[in-house]
Amino acid sequence: MKRTYVKESVYCIGETILLKGWVHRVRHLGKISFMQLKDRTGKIQCVLEGELTGVHVSVESAVEVQGKVVETKQQGLGVELLVHSLTVLNKAQMLPFETNKEELTVNLDTLLNNRVLSMRNEKIQAIFSIKAKVVSLMQEFLMREDFHQIFTPKIVAQGAEGGANVFTFDYFGQSAYLAQSPQFYKQMMVIAGFERVFEIAPVFRAEQHNSSRHLNEYTSVDVELGFIESFLDVMKVEEKLLNYVFQGLKEHCEQELSLFTTELPEVGIIPSMTLAEAHKLLVTKFNKQSPDGDLDNEGERLLGEYVKESMNSDFVFITHYQKESRPMYTMPNPDNSAITDSFDLLYKGAEITSGGQRIHDYDMLIQSFTEKGLQPADFSSYTEAFKYGAPPHGGFAIGLERFIVKLLNLSNVREAAEFPRDIDRLVP
Amino acid sequence: MKRTYVKESVYCIGETILLKGWVHRVRHLGKISFMQLKDRTGKIQCVLEGELTGVHVSVESAVEVQGKVVETKQQGLGVELLVHSLTVLNKAQMLPFETNKEELTVNLDTLLNNRVLSMRNEKIQAIFSIKAKVVSLMQEFLMREDFHQIFTPKIVAQGAEGGANVFTFDYFGQSAYLAQSPQFYKQMMVIAGFERVFEIAPVFRAEQHNSSRHLNEYTSVDVELGFIESFLDVMKVEEKLLNYVFQGLKEHCEQELSLFTTELPEVGIIPSMTLAEAHKLLVTKFNKQSPDGDLDNEGERLLGEYVKESMNSDFVFITHYQKESRPMYTMPNPDNSAITDSFDLLYKGAEITSGGQRIHDYDMLIQSFTEKGLQPADFSSYTEAFKYGAPPHGGFAIGLERFIVKLLNLSNVREAAEFPRDIDRLVP
Repeated sequence: MKRTYVKESVYCIGETILLKGWVHRVRHLGKISFMQLKDRTGKIQCVLEGELTGVHVSVESAVEVQGKVVETKQQGLGVELLVHSLTVLNKAQMLPFETNKEELTVNLDTLLNNRVLSMRNEKIQAIFSIKAKVVSLMQEFLMREDFHQIFTPKIVAQGAEGGANVFTFDYFGQSAYLAQSPQFYKQMMVIAGFERVFEIAPVFRAEQHNSSRHLNEYTSVDVELGFIESFLDVMKVEEKLLNYVFQGLKEHCEQELSLFTTELPEVGIIPSMTLAEAHKLLVTKFNKQSPDGDLDNEGERLLGEYVKESMNSDFVFITHYQKESRPMYTMPNPDNSAITDSFDLLYKGAEITSGGQRIHDYDMLIQSFTEKGLQPADFSSYTEAFKYGAPPHGGFAIGLERFIVKLLNLSNVREAAEFPRDIDRLVP
Repeated sequence: MKRTYVKESVYCIGETILLKGWVHRVRHLGKISFMQLKDRTGKIQCVLEGELTGVHVSVESAVEVQGKVVETKQQGLGVELLVHSLTVLNKAQMLPFETNKEELTVNLDTLLNNRVLSMRNEKIQAIFSIKAKVVSLMQEFLMREDFHQIFTPKIVAQGAEGGANVFTFDYFGQSAYLAQSPQFYKQMMVIAGFERVFEIAPVFRAEQHNSSRHLNEYTSVDVELGFIESFLDVMKVEEKLLNYVFQGLKEHCEQELSLFTTELPEVGIIPSMTLAEAHKLLVTKFNKQSPDGDLDNEGERLLGEYVKESMNSDFVFITHYQKESRPMYTMPNPDNSAITDSFDLLYKGAEITSGGQRIHDYDMLIQSFTEKGLQPADFSSYTEAFKYGAPPHGGFAIGLERFIVKLLNLSNVREAAEFPRDIDRLVP
């Protein structure tokens, strides 16, 4: 008999069907037992009578059941299954914690150590259903907007973002690094003639801090586009992307989102302010000083509050970061070379994106490397591309797990990674 | 003025438009000059007269031109542009080789050393347009079939495929590896309740051989599904996937495909034979001996020829590989424990997929690790998942670049990687 999914059972009233899934809960009431069965599409009550009453089947075991679908008003689904036969495909051993509660009552470490089991929990499973939907909406939007999907190497000869936070290893006698970002490569693909490109792939940061905001491996949604007029064109693409994603989530993930405290706003037009304006506002409104040329976490949080209250926006672009706080490929502002044509995007008071226009002139790029104390010769396989008609271009990157954390009001970025990596965690 | 793309220019006859792109070719004929301009959507002839005649603009420079669209019968596109103004956005220096030929006449090393420039060539660009389309068709198919997109770690504590071909590095004082495959993690996500999952992501193999078939980093299309009846269910999914991809390519990539010698067959039902049958056939038809429990390259090539000639198929499944030639997670055949419920898929005589049913019983899995000489305790974060109701499951992986090589009849897998990695190549 062909398998029927739980959500399809409502169309099968009076029919005998085969369901497969996991045991969510069992109750024995004298001559009758009730077993809730879950598959990836939902949960259904299975009624066990006669010989099947009191059957021993442990919660989270994989089972298949055959039975007849009957209507019932006592179940949300509107139907239940009168079971004819039950087969245990694989019995679950004693669970280290209960999975079938609304909220797991274990600490994050236990939850992550038992990742497979904790994902059986409906709310935790919903995080990854929403994450998958976010990604597919992003892919859909970008492909409709004629962005070309690329696959660039994660084993590289140089870090693209500067700093010491790179993992290094021996590559057949050479020193290699794990890519901190696909930055150089996405620019090179734009210059190579693809014009508009994107990549959704892992990036690696050997950062020592063990915070609730940082992972040592995360998923980066990288977008880059050529022939722009200014970095405002780049911000426009991100704004459109976010509008598309939020619209899609409303249409497709209502049930999953209802498990969280989040409310989905209309994104609309995202407000924007310069870093200088943001600094001034933080002093004026909150008596808060910021680090030179940058924002700290507290500053970002306060700006998030401010735009929510004053403009009812979850998002705000902060533009024109100072040169010293941005990487060597960042385009200086044409009117003030101390600042750059760059931006961050804050979502609910946390940075989820860095972006901006890139330098496309070969000589300016070499000069910028030198000013940052880097040897241009070490990066020649990148800079070479700028000798052959690199168009004006820019782009941005969204940290996917951080985006999910803010979207669902989670408290730790590890909750949004299937199998997170931090300085202490290499398994599972 | 808003940018118009070349392919849209045919709808703008009589209008003044702004085009942006790269100089493909320039010809000066006395009082008139012709410049071919290309953008990612096509090529158009630009006519330069008056002051603009004889303008110095090097091939592959990034330019923008304004002009009037006029009809012409002399150009394939049906229109050309009478240029009013031309702006060089970024001048190309002297090229190391000519990019505007049908086929580049440089060796593979030069082509890869100058990857950005070689991609400006129409045929090379088409490889990556087709690659992107193949991936988006796969994503589309898998999402329609309710497969859940996952993001699993590439930094791992153990190799999943056994053997010594792993890159190792120091991870905050621990030994870590680059993932050879997402095998363990995709199984764990199935078991975690997602049932049907896929991931399209980089994998890493520290293989020492420098062949035309191997990359040290490649893109793996990984698929895994739960509650299967047998490994035939897995093969069915791959067959449907390939039918969908080929149908989509016919509809969307005709122009790009026309640059290659490839012909797209109807995939239909893919023929299948056991490894034992394949061995026998190779002896009978080709007097060819095979290595124990496996096929060599020559054997695969001959089988490819055989199914093409006798069944007009580009594909053939080879099933039931012997236990010793498959990894520890492979399900033994229920009737003959010396062989496994596994398969490879050959495409034009080369392996592009390994797949099969996996062991889902905890005790059987531990025994299989032990039989392979592995310490189950080293893999406990994986095996632990099998204690809690792992359903019968299986899956497969397609090597994306190898698939593209066979699809387009390329001669080296490096041609299908944006920025390939081999034992000698770490840049660009």
